[in-house]
Amino acid sequence: MSITLKVEGMTCQHCVKAVTSAIQARDPKARVNVDLTGHSVTAETSLDRPALAAAVEEEGYKVVG
Amino acid sequence: MSITLKVEGMTCQHCVKAVTSAIQARDPKARVNVDLTGHSVTAETSLDRPALAAAVEEEGYKVVG
Repeated sequence: MSITLKVEGMTCQHCVKAVTSAIQARDPKARVNVDLTGHSVTAETSLDRPALAAAVEEEGYKVVG
Repeated sequence: MSITLKVEGMTCQHCVKAVTSAIQARDPKARVNVDLTGHSVTAETSLDRPALAAAVEEEGYKVVG
């Protein structure tokens, strides 16, 4: 399943790594794309949307949509 | 010795950590302050200015002054 979240606060390559790692800690097979300029995270994952959002928020980012 | 560098590209708390760790890897006793909005790094350190700048640049940031 592919899910896209709108996320605030991701600014740099460290953020990309942090978000990607957090998602892959919950779903090692997840394919994650972080779009810094588009302020979004798209993941091909077996996680559902709340679990995906929780992983992102745990890293300190705000999921806004 | 206190040295202040103007640095481009530092955007978030991950950047603060990366820069601080890079400097403290070379001088464990260094006291480092990263000002994200002021785009500067100030360090109380035994490193000289070129060594401090090298530590910051190694993390992928541009020292501009």
